[in-house]
Amino acid sequence: MEAVVLRYGHRIFRDQRVTSHCCLVARAFGASEIIVEGIQDPELEKNFYDVAKRWGGKEKLSFTQSWKKTAQEYRKKGFYITHLTMYGMPVQEETQKIRKKEKHLVIIGSQKVEPQVYAFADSNISVTGQPHSEIAALAVFLDRLFNGEELAKKFPNAEIEVVPQEKGKKTTEKSRKRV
Amino acid sequence: MEAVVLRYGHRIFRDQRVTSHCCLVARAFGASEIIVEGIQDPELEKNFYDVAKRWGGKEKLSFTQSWKKTAQEYRKKGFYITHLTMYGMPVQEETQKIRKKEKHLVIIGSQKVEPQVYAFADSNISVTGQPHSEIAALAVFLDRLFNGEELAKKFPNAEIEVVPQEKGKKTTEKSRKRV
Repeated sequence: MEAVVLRYGHRIFRDQRVTSHCCLVARAFGASEIIVEGIQDPELEKNFYDVAKRWGGKEKLSFTQSWKKTAQEYRKKGFYITHLTMYGMPVQEETQKIRKKEKHLVIIGSQKVEPQVYAFADSNISVTGQPHSEIAALAVFLDRLFNGEELAKKFPNAEIEVVPQEKGKKTTEKSRKRV
Repeated sequence: MEAVVLRYGHRIFRDQRVTSHCCLVARAFGASEIIVEGIQDPELEKNFYDVAKRWGGKEKLSFTQSWKKTAQEYRKKGFYITHLTMYGMPVQEETQKIRKKEKHLVIIGSQKVEPQVYAFADSNISVTGQPHSEIAALAVFLDRLFNGEELAKKFPNAEIEVVPQEKGKKTTEKSRKRV
């Protein structure tokens, strides 16, 4: 199964930290690609690729000027489009159905998402009907989409890997680079 | 089962948006109380209680000057203390064991958590061994702790409730207050 995450309406500077969390969650929870709607944000890119280089994987980050154009392209390529919103249908009732699809585009927004997104999506899905965080909604949705298997995902070509510990921190490093 | 969330090391202004997401996730995913380590942050409080008033529930937000003092108090009251960290034991392997406890204090930190937290916790738990977001880790951990039942939680005395829709937004309002 493949998942691509589309972050709607990123505002450079103001949203940098939250969008950065979104991108890292997408990567950690098994998405292959993250597309951010907004002007190119060099700081966001740097943060993401610094992590990706060190912790491995082949995930890509790119930018688009139009969520709709991008979503249309992915629809043509056979992607099923899910928009995460607190106003949608409950994730716990819909996941079984959605999981039957092979390719997924997951749109996450902020507080102000235009009505067109709701109309365009194949599914509007809520992770609780309460206001909270698109970061949390994305994580729980991907966790259910991938049925928890993403939690043990191995990232190829990692320079560093965690060795889980009951207390403290342990990592293995393949090549140690210090400035 | 009861869960209280302790947010370690909140820095007023700089962390406001991320901590605000943490607090709203804690509330939405079934925690009864959120304690933020740091000086009292009126903006954070206002955001939280604005949501809580409108969307219901009895969840509390408070501040502490010492995570350790607070954690010690909760330990005395019989709470099991879980620290969420990418260096800990995998959540998918540990949840069954942790779920046997009745009362939980869940500590979430930021990038720099002092070694004492790891030593003090009853369990150090990772939600993937990858760097991502404490907001996401908290959501997935609570989702597994409460076994998904929190997703359908009803919040008493809500002024507004979502009516899940396949397209668009629908809410019911008990008392409409407009300025």
